[in-house]
Amino acid sequence: KRQGSPEVIFGEGKTSTQIIDISRAMITKKEDILVTRVNKEKVEEIRRELPEFQYHEIANLLFMKNTKDTVSSKGYIAIVCAGTSDLAVAEEAALTAEAYGIEVRRFYDVGVAGIHRLFAHIDEIRQATVSVVIAGMEGALPSVVGGLVSHPIIAVPTSVGYGANFQGLSALLTMLNSCASGISVVNIDNGFGGAYNAVLIHRLANNSK
Amino acid sequence: KRQGSPEVIFGEGKTSTQIIDISRAMITKKEDILVTRVNKEKVEEIRRELPEFQYHEIANLLFMKNTKDTVSSKGYIAIVCAGTSDLAVAEEAALTAEAYGIEVRRFYDVGVAGIHRLFAHIDEIRQATVSVVIAGMEGALPSVVGGLVSHPIIAVPTSVGYGANFQGLSALLTMLNSCASGISVVNIDNGFGGAYNAVLIHRLANNSK
Amino acid sequence: KRQGSPEVIFGEGKTSTQIIDISRAMITKKEDILVTRVNKEKVEEIRRELPEFQYHEIANLLFMKNTKDTVSSKGYIAIVCAGTSDLAVAEEAALTAEAYGIEVRRFYDVGVAGIHRLFAHIDEIRQATVSVVIAGMEGALPSVVGGLVSHPIIAVPTSVGYGANFQGLSALLTMLNSCASGISVVNIDNGFGGAYNAVLIHRLANNSK
Amino acid sequence: KRQGSPEVIFGEGKTSTQIIDISRAMITKKEDILVTRVNKEKVEEIRRELPEFQYHEIANLLFMKNTKDTVSSKGYIAIVCAGTSDLAVAEEAALTAEAYGIEVRRFYDVGVAGIHRLFAHIDEIRQATVSVVIAGMEGALPSVVGGLVSHPIIAVPTSVGYGANFQGLSALLTMLNSCASGISVVNIDNGFGGAYNAVLIHRLANNSK
Amino acid sequence: KRQGSPEVIFGEGKTSTQIIDISRAMITKKEDILVTRVNKEKVEEIRRELPEFQYHEIANLLFMKNTKDTVSSKGYIAIVCAGTSDLAVAEEAALTAEAYGIEVRRFYDVGVAGIHRLFAHIDEIRQATVSVVIAGMEGALPSVVGGLVSHPIIAVPTSVGYGANFQGLSALLTMLNSCASGISVVNIDNGFGGAYNAVLIHRLANNSK
Amino acid sequence: KRQGSPEVIFGEGKTSTQIIDISRAMITKKEDILVTRVNKEKVEEIRRELPEFQYHEIANLLFMKNTKDTVSSKGYIAIVCAGTSDLAVAEEAALTAEAYGIEVRRFYDVGVAGIHRLFAHIDEIRQATVSVVIAGMEGALPSVVGGLVSHPIIAVPTSVGYGANFQGLSALLTMLNSCASGISVVNIDNGFGGAYNAVLIHRLANNSK
Amino acid sequence: KRQGSPEVIFGEGKTSTQIIDISRAMITKKEDILVTRVNKEKVEEIRRELPEFQYHEIANLLFMKNTKDTVSSKGYIAIVCAGTSDLAVAEEAALTAEAYGIEVRRFYDVGVAGIHRLFAHIDEIRQATVSVVIAGMEGALPSVVGGLVSHPIIAVPTSVGYGANFQGLSALLTMLNSCASGISVVNIDNGFGGAYNAVLIHRLANNSK
Amino acid sequence: KRQGSPEVIFGEGKTSTQIIDISRAMITKKEDILVTRVNKEKVEEIRRELPEFQYHEIANLLFMKNTKDTVSSKGYIAIVCAGTSDLAVAEEAALTAEAYGIEVRRFYDVGVAGIHRLFAHIDEIRQATVSVVIAGMEGALPSVVGGLVSHPIIAVPTSVGYGANFQGLSALLTMLNSCASGISVVNIDNGFGGAYNAVLIHRLANNSK
Ligand SMILES: Nc1ncnc2c1ncn2[C@@H]1O[C@H](COP(=O)(O)O)[C@@H](O)[C@H]1O
Ligand SMILES: Nc1ncnc2c1ncn2[C@@H]1O[C@H](COP(=O)(O)O)[C@@H](O)[C@H]1O
Ligand SMILES: Nc1ncnc2c1ncn2[C@@H]1O[C@H](COP(=O)(O)O)[C@@H](O)[C@H]1O
Ligand SMILES: Nc1ncnc2c1ncn2[C@@H]1O[C@H](COP(=O)(O)O)[C@@H](O)[C@H]1O
Ligand SMILES: [Mg+2]
Ligand SMILES: [Mg+2]
Ligand SMILES: [Mg+2]
Ligand SMILES: [Mg+2]
Ligand SMILES: [Mg+2]
Ligand SMILES: [Mg+2]
Ligand SMILES: [Mg+2]
Ligand SMILES: [Mg+2]
Repeated sequence: KRQGSPEVIFGEGKTSTQIIDISRAMITKKEDILVTRVNKEKVEEIRRELPEFQYHEIANLLFMKNTKDTVSSKGYIAIVCAGTSDLAVAEEAALTAEAYGIEVRRFYDVGVAGIHRLFAHIDEIRQATVSVVIAGMEGALPSVVGGLVSHPIIAVPTSVGYGANFQGLSALLTMLNSCASGISVVNIDNGFGGAYNAVLIHRLANNSK
Repeated sequence: KRQGSPEVIFGEGKTSTQIIDISRAMITKKEDILVTRVNKEKVEEIRRELPEFQYHEIANLLFMKNTKDTVSSKGYIAIVCAGTSDLAVAEEAALTAEAYGIEVRRFYDVGVAGIHRLFAHIDEIRQATVSVVIAGMEGALPSVVGGLVSHPIIAVPTSVGYGANFQGLSALLTMLNSCASGISVVNIDNGFGGAYNAVLIHRLANNSK
Repeated sequence: KRQGSPEVIFGEGKTSTQIIDISRAMITKKEDILVTRVNKEKVEEIRRELPEFQYHEIANLLFMKNTKDTVSSKGYIAIVCAGTSDLAVAEEAALTAEAYGIEVRRFYDVGVAGIHRLFAHIDEIRQATVSVVIAGMEGALPSVVGGLVSHPIIAVPTSVGYGANFQGLSALLTMLNSCASGISVVNIDNGFGGAYNAVLIHRLANNSK
Repeated sequence: KRQGSPEVIFGEGKTSTQIIDISRAMITKKEDILVTRVNKEKVEEIRRELPEFQYHEIANLLFMKNTKDTVSSKGYIAIVCAGTSDLAVAEEAALTAEAYGIEVRRFYDVGVAGIHRLFAHIDEIRQATVSVVIAGMEGALPSVVGGLVSHPIIAVPTSVGYGANFQGLSALLTMLNSCASGISVVNIDNGFGGAYNAVLIHRLANNSK
Repeated sequence: KRQGSPEVIFGEGKTSTQIIDISRAMITKKEDILVTRVNKEKVEEIRRELPEFQYHEIANLLFMKNTKDTVSSKGYIAIVCAGTSDLAVAEEAALTAEAYGIEVRRFYDVGVAGIHRLFAHIDEIRQATVSVVIAGMEGALPSVVGGLVSHPIIAVPTSVGYGANFQGLSALLTMLNSCASGISVVNIDNGFGGAYNAVLIHRLANNSK
Repeated sequence: KRQGSPEVIFGEGKTSTQIIDISRAMITKKEDILVTRVNKEKVEEIRRELPEFQYHEIANLLFMKNTKDTVSSKGYIAIVCAGTSDLAVAEEAALTAEAYGIEVRRFYDVGVAGIHRLFAHIDEIRQATVSVVIAGMEGALPSVVGGLVSHPIIAVPTSVGYGANFQGLSALLTMLNSCASGISVVNIDNGFGGAYNAVLIHRLANNSK
Repeated sequence: KRQGSPEVIFGEGKTSTQIIDISRAMITKKEDILVTRVNKEKVEEIRRELPEFQYHEIANLLFMKNTKDTVSSKGYIAIVCAGTSDLAVAEEAALTAEAYGIEVRRFYDVGVAGIHRLFAHIDEIRQATVSVVIAGMEGALPSVVGGLVSHPIIAVPTSVGYGANFQGLSALLTMLNSCASGISVVNIDNGFGGAYNAVLIHRLANNSK
Repeated sequence: KRQGSPEVIFGEGKTSTQIIDISRAMITKKEDILVTRVNKEKVEEIRRELPEFQYHEIANLLFMKNTKDTVSSKGYIAIVCAGTSDLAVAEEAALTAEAYGIEVRRFYDVGVAGIHRLFAHIDEIRQATVSVVIAGMEGALPSVVGGLVSHPIIAVPTSVGYGANFQGLSALLTMLNSCASGISVVNIDNGFGGAYNAVLIHRLANNSK
């Protein structure tokens, strides 16, 4: 098992008991463990048995470090979103990338309706290896960021919004139809997937050294 | 009939003969005439009978001025779009507003993927009474403009694009879910309707003087 | 900050603590505050800390006036809907416009299935600067009103209904396809957005004096 | 075979030869024949063989009377629509009902955006046994008529319009969600079906004498 | 107010208090009252104040008879469905028709997958004035009944089923596309509407005597 | 290569040249060849080179027998549909099964709206090993047949119809939601696929001898 | 009643009392009983009265054996799925087939993203008479299995997943569009239906002996 | 302008004249030019003026090299698809990457229904920097490849197929819901976009040296 590569458990649709059992097997093998999409109730049951798990409530995510050394990589991944409502997905992305041992910089208040805030940070975003851009409602942020940076962008639509957002369909279609190049898209609310793709790209940029 | 208020004929689904007949009745009443959504073939047949019609090919639109004086209003309507592909809808909007006797300023190369071009013109857009913002594909432009100006925006989604644009659904949903305030939306490709709403608002701003 | 321009907080997806914190910052700056889409539980927690908030239960809305003088504008906005079921959205619209210091007249029993009630009020609606017309189920009201008045109409579809209303899609499509001109549309259940557009238009009509 | 009950051939997807063959069999049996959804090319081929067929171009419909006497029924069916664009469907309905030997009255210029024209005719519509109300775009007409008359209404959505009308889906959903009672709906563009239901009802009203 | 014509209150989205108030006004006017779509909790609160209401739990419906005489009409309406799962909608239809003073015959075990049961009753169904045919899942029953009877059929799709039934869309589309003539359709789960259309038709058949 | 197992070429999206080349390779290997979804133009070009191909126009299908002996199997597959409009798909199914050397019986006039015709043939359908049931519009036929036979049914929805059939979606959903057991479904208009599944089942029934 | 053919009760939308009553009638007739889609609460009430029912919690299924002898058939049905999340549907399928007296082999850890696990078992799957392949999310498993085995496959899409899985629509469409032949599809989450089709096919393979 | 970075013209919706004009401007600036989505007619008109353009018919693409030197990068991009039908999109991707000066390896016969062909090439695919995986119909290929390689995959759904593929929606949803990690998705038929993302990633892997 490669360092800085946690085993990932998709928590949704698994019982606490199942998660505990899988985790124990991994602890034996001394692997880092990342559990996504766990709710509060499950977390309590799991941590009663395995208190070593750190819980990140806002991202519904558990993490346990069982390897010793940290990986060191050059550069960072930018996690970009518009504000409080997309925070859960953004943090799922950010914490995932960190679990893989990569530096993350958060840009969490830069929506298209207040574009000056994006400009205030655009240079720091530009210097990232790759950006994960998260947006709900109209989902326009990746297009705007994509026009301003030249590295790859992983766009994550969220289900945030109401009415004609149709649970994230609106943001998903927006991102797929982006007229900026260099944008690819993952499933609605899939912060983990957005980050995982970014991790693969970040490693390529580093490994080739 | 109020000056600067052409009678409007929706050309789609009408035969040349029907359009000619309706037009003649209006000529008698000395009214300006605007015909939208006519194709080239119909135009030839119509102009053979009524050569006074000016034809705007890119917008599929015929116009005939039968009133003498021009209305004068203060200020202008901004018509904003990203480029060549949305031109037909943008010109339908622009020519409609002009048919109503209102000054129009065109900003036709200002998409979200090259946002600096938008910024180069933003001050002139800001000074308009109202903006009609047209976009296909991801339809993000009204959100960005909406965050930068404080007057009302009429957003017009277009069917331009392919694949997951689903004939304009993508741009429509984007605009309805805009997180910028002050944006309302008309039907896909409805340049006429976008302009008509802007005309009503522009007049309110003028009449009240 | 312009008078009669409350700072608006979108309550959905924010915790009471977040809302309280943002509100406090605004109180310091002596701004009026409008919080939309708060539920009863949050309201109790918020008002325990900030009892100055007035609560409008039917519209799920909190308002606090921190500026002294009132703006005075000529004319009024008409809020038009069919009855009890659309009341929540209609009141969100009405209270929003009032929070911006504009007179509102409510026409709340005028659906298309009993059109004489609409006619009884049509003259008073006609004299408004702009109308916000709210409808669920088949969403036909804006088309009918649009044919009878010559000012701009902001149409707000609601999710009221069942079965083939598909949570407001039915009313949304109806309004986008209206054959009356002068109608533009906002998101499903977006009473705030409907009113906000009307406020911008109403101000234009006044400012130009 | 009951008098005034033509045999009906659905022309779409049948070759001219097939239609001719079926028709000949019916002529032998001395039955009236109604062929719907035939296009011009087929019509020419069919009438070369069977010139007795009357062709109604606007409705894409062929009719041949082979029975002698006419049925006489009391009262009439109202066919109601908004204008030129829905004419094809309206005429399919009107001619169908007439083929069944029932008096039809046409009200073809009464859309919701110009509701005074509807009121000018409402008394005559009210006295019909049953109404077939046809509408495209936003499809609001049946709701308005339904609120004004107390007999049953068969609503026929049409595919007329563009953009977010989604080929008639918009009008279909509007009609299914009507808040007026006494309205039932048939398939998009199904003028025949609308009339056929009206015929059955009209006969019930007569037979019971 | 015509005898046998209850005032109808659509209970969904109304509070018990609102329903009680409207009912009291009607009691004063000596009108029969039908309340549809009330749940158990509301019913208890309403009947505490107005114990004269009869409650039909399976149909979520309240009825109160305040007129004296009964209307008598010839013939009956057939209410046809496949079984236990569609019972709520079927009973909403049946009880509505009865509230209008019309005889109803129930055929509640006659789905398409066991077609012999339908045949066992088909003669009695045939002799009805009009049928209300209710079906969920694939919604095929109206097509089959429509092929066997010659009176009008009002088809009511239900949301019964799961997966690709998409909350009733499947049954709705089936019914709209029926290749049997003489079928018209109302909204998903709209037992009331199905019956109301049938009542209008039944009366026509009787009045003309 | 097993006898009675033609190599299948999916003709859509292949040029005549490509089809000719693939066919020649198979002729060398002495394999039977079935080409589906070829249009008339391609057929002419192909048969100019390979006149041994038999062309079945109604099914858009080419077949060439290059093996000598015929397979013999007990029993037959029933191909069931409602009439002329579904013929193309039905014949694609029937000819496919025959190309695999299996006896086919065609029941082509047995729709749900004239159910007595189905009953006239039901015994012969029942004795088939397996049925392929094809239907467009409301797609109800498989449900009715499924309730009457006890062998497996492969249901094939077709795109035949208009309006709310949404190019076959209506029939597809109907079949997936069938309340009769023993029905499974293939893609819209996929006569080949329907038959291929039936062939596999028919062989199982024979091989086990 | 044929041996090994339980009477099946669809538990959803039935009360415990209804299920108990139907069951008692069957016990009298000495039939095996299979109840699908019952939840825990109902199960408790039912087993209080009828403790002979065996409950399979993961599959929400009750079974009672009232016949004596067991049917014996040659061969087995393969139930194939990717893992824990699809277990409920897979077990509904497996237990259904077993209730019909047929041997089942479970292959529950063989998703497309870890295809070596599928290969480890492919020979044993190949020797099954028929496979039921269950998959949620992207639903690709039946295509891959279909390319590797030559017997019929019944594909069961599940609603497992989130976001753009649209409650199983994604997996459903994938399976309907499979480019492997020999795959037919049942409703989303319909484990029972998948197994029932497999049972019919398995019997054909056996009966013909 | 960076070497190996052609200026890209989106040909759809542009006239030949527009494309010629833009191209001439670029020739002056000595830039490489890539024109996508041009059809045969336009190509003829363009090459009459600018015969230096190489035309790739299958990909509807024009390319002109105006820079001298070639970029050299280590490694290659894998372009993976199932066969003839997806060729147009695959070649748009391959030629785009080559226009950017990057080595491409084509794997064009490796669909999921014949998975051994994929395995025959998997080692060479694994050694690519990044893969662009193209699939229509059920779109399962990226999931399978994703489970076998550890570099990033850009998935391109195509509109190839018919019926329930809904013009590429089926493949799009499949790819978005992939249970393999490391897959991100671009618009339906967007071969250019798939390649462009791969180019950015490939450069990162090289630049970091
Ligand atoms: N391009 C257009 N799109 C939508 N509506 C239009 C358009 N052009 C005209 N209309 C509307 O159609 C009306 C005229 O319709 P008609 O009487 O059928 O010619 C006008 O008053 C406008 O409201
Ligand atoms: N279950 C129902 N579904 C649809 N419409 C109903 C239903 N029950 C009553 N209605 C309609 O709602 C009207 C009363 O609405 P309201 O005035 O809001 O109580 C009645 O006249 C009916 O037309
Ligand atoms: N009409 C059809 N519809 C769907 N799939 C088909 C059809 N005809 C052939 N096929 C499938 O396409 C395969 C051949 O595809 P190809 O190699 O592209 O010619 C056959 O083995 C069948 O599985
Ligand atoms: N086939 C394609 N699909 C989607 N986007 C494309 C395609 N070809 C080019 N583009 C994009 O379109 C831009 C050029 O657009 P334009 O300025 O309208 O020619 C390029 O920079 C690409 O980002
Ligand atoms: Mg970029
Ligand atoms: Mg603004
Ligand atoms: Mg108006
Ligand atoms: Mg009425
Ligand atoms: Mg009938
Ligand atoms: Mg059966
Ligand atoms: Mg196979
Ligand atoms: Mg991988």
